[in-house]
Amino acid sequence: MIIVMKPDAKKEQVEKLQEELIHEGMTVQLNEGVQCTVLGIIGDTQKLDYEALGMRDGVERVMRVQEPFKKSNRKFHNDDTVIHVGGVQIGGGTMTVMAGPCSVESAAQVTGIAKRVKKAGARLLRGGAYKPRTSPYAFQGLEKEGLEMLREAREATGLPIVSEIISPRHVEMFEMVVDVIQIGARNMQNFDLLKEVGKTQKPILLKRGLSSTIEEWLMSAEYIMSRGNNNVILCERGIRTFETYTRNTLDLSAVAAVKKLSHLPIIVDPSHGTGRREMVEPMAMAAVAAGADGLMIEVHNDPAKALSDGQQSLTPDQFDSVMEKVKKVSELMGKTL
Amino acid sequence: MIIVMKPDAKKEQVEKLQEELIHEGMTVQLNEGVQCTVLGIIGDTQKLDYEALGMRDGVERVMRVQEPFKKSNRKFHNDDTVIHVGGVQIGGGTMTVMAGPCSVESAAQVTGIAKRVKKAGARLLRGGAYKPRTSPYAFQGLEKEGLEMLREAREATGLPIVSEIISPRHVEMFEMVVDVIQIGARNMQNFDLLKEVGKTQKPILLKRGLSSTIEEWLMSAEYIMSRGNNNVILCERGIRTFETYTRNTLDLSAVAAVKKLSHLPIIVDPSHGTGRREMVEPMAMAAVAAGADGLMIEVHNDPAKALSDGQQSLTPDQFDSVMEKVKKVSELMGKTL
Amino acid sequence: MIIVMKPDAKKEQVEKLQEELIHEGMTVQLNEGVQCTVLGIIGDTQKLDYEALGMRDGVERVMRVQEPFKKSNRKFHNDDTVIHVGGVQIGGGTMTVMAGPCSVESAAQVTGIAKRVKKAGARLLRGGAYKPRTSPYAFQGLEKEGLEMLREAREATGLPIVSEIISPRHVEMFEMVVDVIQIGARNMQNFDLLKEVGKTQKPILLKRGLSSTIEEWLMSAEYIMSRGNNNVILCERGIRTFETYTRNTLDLSAVAAVKKLSHLPIIVDPSHGTGRREMVEPMAMAAVAAGADGLMIEVHNDPAKALSDGQQSLTPDQFDSVMEKVKKVSELMGKTL
Amino acid sequence: MIIVMKPDAKKEQVEKLQEELIHEGMTVQLNEGVQCTVLGIIGDTQKLDYEALGMRDGVERVMRVQEPFKKSNRKFHNDDTVIHVGGVQIGGGTMTVMAGPCSVESAAQVTGIAKRVKKAGARLLRGGAYKPRTSPYAFQGLEKEGLEMLREAREATGLPIVSEIISPRHVEMFEMVVDVIQIGARNMQNFDLLKEVGKTQKPILLKRGLSSTIEEWLMSAEYIMSRGNNNVILCERGIRTFETYTRNTLDLSAVAAVKKLSHLPIIVDPSHGTGRREMVEPMAMAAVAAGADGLMIEVHNDPAKALSDGQQSLTPDQFDSVMEKVKKVSELMGKTL
Repeated sequence: MIIVMKPDAKKEQVEKLQEELIHEGMTVQLNEGVQCTVLGIIGDTQKLDYEALGMRDGVERVMRVQEPFKKSNRKFHNDDTVIHVGGVQIGGGTMTVMAGPCSVESAAQVTGIAKRVKKAGARLLRGGAYKPRTSPYAFQGLEKEGLEMLREAREATGLPIVSEIISPRHVEMFEMVVDVIQIGARNMQNFDLLKEVGKTQKPILLKRGLSSTIEEWLMSAEYIMSRGNNNVILCERGIRTFETYTRNTLDLSAVAAVKKLSHLPIIVDPSHGTGRREMVEPMAMAAVAAGADGLMIEVHNDPAKALSDGQQSLTPDQFDSVMEKVKKVSELMGKTL
Repeated sequence: MIIVMKPDAKKEQVEKLQEELIHEGMTVQLNEGVQCTVLGIIGDTQKLDYEALGMRDGVERVMRVQEPFKKSNRKFHNDDTVIHVGGVQIGGGTMTVMAGPCSVESAAQVTGIAKRVKKAGARLLRGGAYKPRTSPYAFQGLEKEGLEMLREAREATGLPIVSEIISPRHVEMFEMVVDVIQIGARNMQNFDLLKEVGKTQKPILLKRGLSSTIEEWLMSAEYIMSRGNNNVILCERGIRTFETYTRNTLDLSAVAAVKKLSHLPIIVDPSHGTGRREMVEPMAMAAVAAGADGLMIEVHNDPAKALSDGQQSLTPDQFDSVMEKVKKVSELMGKTL
Repeated sequence: MIIVMKPDAKKEQVEKLQEELIHEGMTVQLNEGVQCTVLGIIGDTQKLDYEALGMRDGVERVMRVQEPFKKSNRKFHNDDTVIHVGGVQIGGGTMTVMAGPCSVESAAQVTGIAKRVKKAGARLLRGGAYKPRTSPYAFQGLEKEGLEMLREAREATGLPIVSEIISPRHVEMFEMVVDVIQIGARNMQNFDLLKEVGKTQKPILLKRGLSSTIEEWLMSAEYIMSRGNNNVILCERGIRTFETYTRNTLDLSAVAAVKKLSHLPIIVDPSHGTGRREMVEPMAMAAVAAGADGLMIEVHNDPAKALSDGQQSLTPDQFDSVMEKVKKVSELMGKTL
Repeated sequence: MIIVMKPDAKKEQVEKLQEELIHEGMTVQLNEGVQCTVLGIIGDTQKLDYEALGMRDGVERVMRVQEPFKKSNRKFHNDDTVIHVGGVQIGGGTMTVMAGPCSVESAAQVTGIAKRVKKAGARLLRGGAYKPRTSPYAFQGLEKEGLEMLREAREATGLPIVSEIISPRHVEMFEMVVDVIQIGARNMQNFDLLKEVGKTQKPILLKRGLSSTIEEWLMSAEYIMSRGNNNVILCERGIRTFETYTRNTLDLSAVAAVKKLSHLPIIVDPSHGTGRREMVEPMAMAAVAAGADGLMIEVHNDPAKALSDGQQSLTPDQFDSVMEKVKKVSELMGKTL
């Protein structure tokens, strides 16, 4: 960590700061320049409060020389993390597609869709049982019953299941039922929940927050990993911008960025990312070309009647067609579907 | 609710939609125009999925004629909500100042600050015991012990205490210890937590999310109120923008907007809202002039050494000076401090 | 256009509005619903002030049933616009790459780069002579002299040249010298400049504004086309978001959106869009997979010494390698390079 | 300027950079730390390309120790700039209100409004003759004729006039007719226009761009001042955020920030800043309490019929009432109206 003092910082301010840092167990190297004084801090700087330091009197700016994320950082773990779940591999040269309805509506519905998406090449089944909705008056999901339906669909198809968790009090239940626990965008900084799923060994699919930076996202992965669970899959699902034509703006450069910064696998959700059915195909293809390890796509047997997110869901037939194209781009990228 | 069909919507699409809405218990009024067909929907439209409907085939746009928030809506509750806590009033013509350290550090610290801010005119003591931090390696607060210190400070000064909750599993404990439960910006859409505090009767201070709209914020208030707790205090604390000089951008027009849309009291946090000590005074004055019911201000005995958010904290002396100016603007606004 | 009145709008407000609209030459169809009154407006609604109407007393919302862009709208011109410049085609099934230095630095430099990028498959040469810089003290480009150097490079290679214009007073000069006139992101809503280049018949490369929506962008194209110049090429170059790892956030869904909304060709600039050399390749590939008609890529003989935007520039060798991959994705997309 | 090298930067990279900087006339001070090497650069660093340097191989980050704006910087010009125009003072302890219609519609209209706002205490008359509109099909203003009407209104009332310029080709005309030349938000980075008005000695009212930072705004002021015109008045008019209830988000902390960073006067436009008539009063009061030097308020004789921006315009009666309250807050702030 480097602390740049203001050009007009007083000698006492520098000394006081230096003392305190030494008191915290750091080694401080002082560089007095013509323009300003720069402190080089060596030690376990992770425990220092970056922001608080930057706001000390006389301090111009604090710069981390190292990224604040450690366990998720590629620098300290050069090999790609590969996650195995029920015979399916995520990361490490495969292209893994997760598909299914936004909300679980009935056992017949979800099993029916599961069979169709499996046939088209999907390797995991996604389905929401607990839905975080902006309005308390909107449909909140079938909850426990919905999880049960997903379990039935898994039995019928063998597809491992992914479902979103919304409460730390549900962790035990999810651990027993689902194969991959999803943390939704709105809970990306629900640190209490992150810590709790971090105590399990289940793969966690961590969606990026609506207006979070890549660094904040990796810090949330770090929360999970710091509790002992290294099985984190990142999922880009669009960020909030001023654009209104799409529901969110899918940030595909996040794929390339994450590949460089971290060893964790990253998948892309073009359904939520665009909110428009007709954009799922081009964005799925672009995501693969950008280097994603997988895709999460909404498929519904009757999108026009879907209880949530109907317009962004594909019909099974449309999904077949998208998968054919995704397959071709994946091959070009040297990835097996 | 009004549904505007696309100019090229097919007759069958209109009929199918109409049927389904009737099936959901709505009354549908059809207006076939030259340009397009408009459906007027009457009934308990709150239970309809606004977004899903808007994405149906043939639908151009869905417009709510009524705001989606009911219990927090001024239209259905014209009188200002006034919240009473430990002899202190929030809303209804008073200017209520909450002050204290960002983080509770020791019993002596928090009681010391409490005495000083009380003398200057603060009516509640704020202090963080559980801190939601971006990094798992950063100081997470003194937790339970911190709450205990706040309790001591209350005993010593009589000031009711406000502290942030981060887990639904802590609700019972907070109910017993604190006077006002704070929901932080990052948890504004932690619906599980909102529902849980909604089951208590404690006043809830609900901070606005970093990139949330006013409507989303009121919908979060609605989550709390829909569970039976009407004691919600809104707190504007700055939103994320591209500006980097300030930590966040304090949206004071939200004060005027909330006053029009809702009957709930709204206070402003110029400390987090700007992240800069020297801006607390002008922004506090502006907030009062904009019509806020109160202020939340960080005060620390030794800001340069504060464990978190030091730069935005005032010293007790600075707080005295801010309070004098706030008092004058409050008088001008016809509010008693 | 549809005007939805407020539920509590007064009869006089509706009548007054109706009268005025008739006075403006519109036909007004009145639908009095149970919840509210809806006016259907028929006629040349383009000349009405959408925003002003929406803010009239008693008006809840004004909805355009038609997009506000006409000449650029695919609805009225279903075939893709194909632009021909100096033997090169943009749009209509080709993948056209424009490459060159951010700033023209010397005749030798730009001609040298031109030769290299031509060999690798680029079909146009880009180079900045007039640079819009945030600081008046920064290098503003070689100006007239720079254009001259581009002309020499064209003579040496046959590559048509693209360069950015920053003043309506330069239009005549640009018309004589360059083959494609570029409007930069900061000038996307410099309507005076748009009108002026709209009077020429030169192809105009219109970059998207830093925080503009797709609709605003198409409205800027409309400014050019409404003056008689239909040769507009859109260029997505990244929008401003909260992400700091990349310089901007490349919005590739804009490619799919523009393809649906408009008949104009759209190209992507992954160099400015990411600001990072190592991200140019994955984003170029993703852009092609998303359906772009072309790419604009910065190439510099010595990026480390580039006078502007060095870090995002590729070396000619790196460009060779990107082009090979772009070629493969283009083939997959059925496009000839 | 300080350049922090990456921890793994090579010796050659450091040396090469050092050499080049010396070649550019800088003095370079080398600090080799344990973690990384830091270069302190002394000299006329304004001419260096900040961004390009930051992207050089081996460079971690470039930090300016000094703000990039010089002439507008309070550090080099501690006294508040006071601008005098036609007997009216802007800055320096006064509260100056500019009022008038968004668009000039007729001589009678603008003169009528001018008389009313003068009576209420406005000191300048504002009115748009050239309107930068998103759509080429929307009303573009009365142009030259509109300026003529403003001139008549000035003759009738003695109020100096403010009007927006949209083309560098109009500078001469504006110089002759108006008293304060306004640069609108969309042209804040139209550098060509900034340079051109910088050659005059007319006071320039520079509105903040829709998504610009305060630093970018001051750099635009710098463009004007670097050409010799120091008479710049800054005007905060709201920035683009995700909030939809207000047209823009008025950033009142920009007032306090500008007061600290610059010596230029700053006024606030609560009309465009909120887009809602009923919010003009609270935001005007808040702006004054935040320390603004003036206000720009839209007033229209018949807002419901205004050709542009009707909803945000006050009637003359409403303006009278706002001015009374503004007067009281101004007095509290020690400012004369």
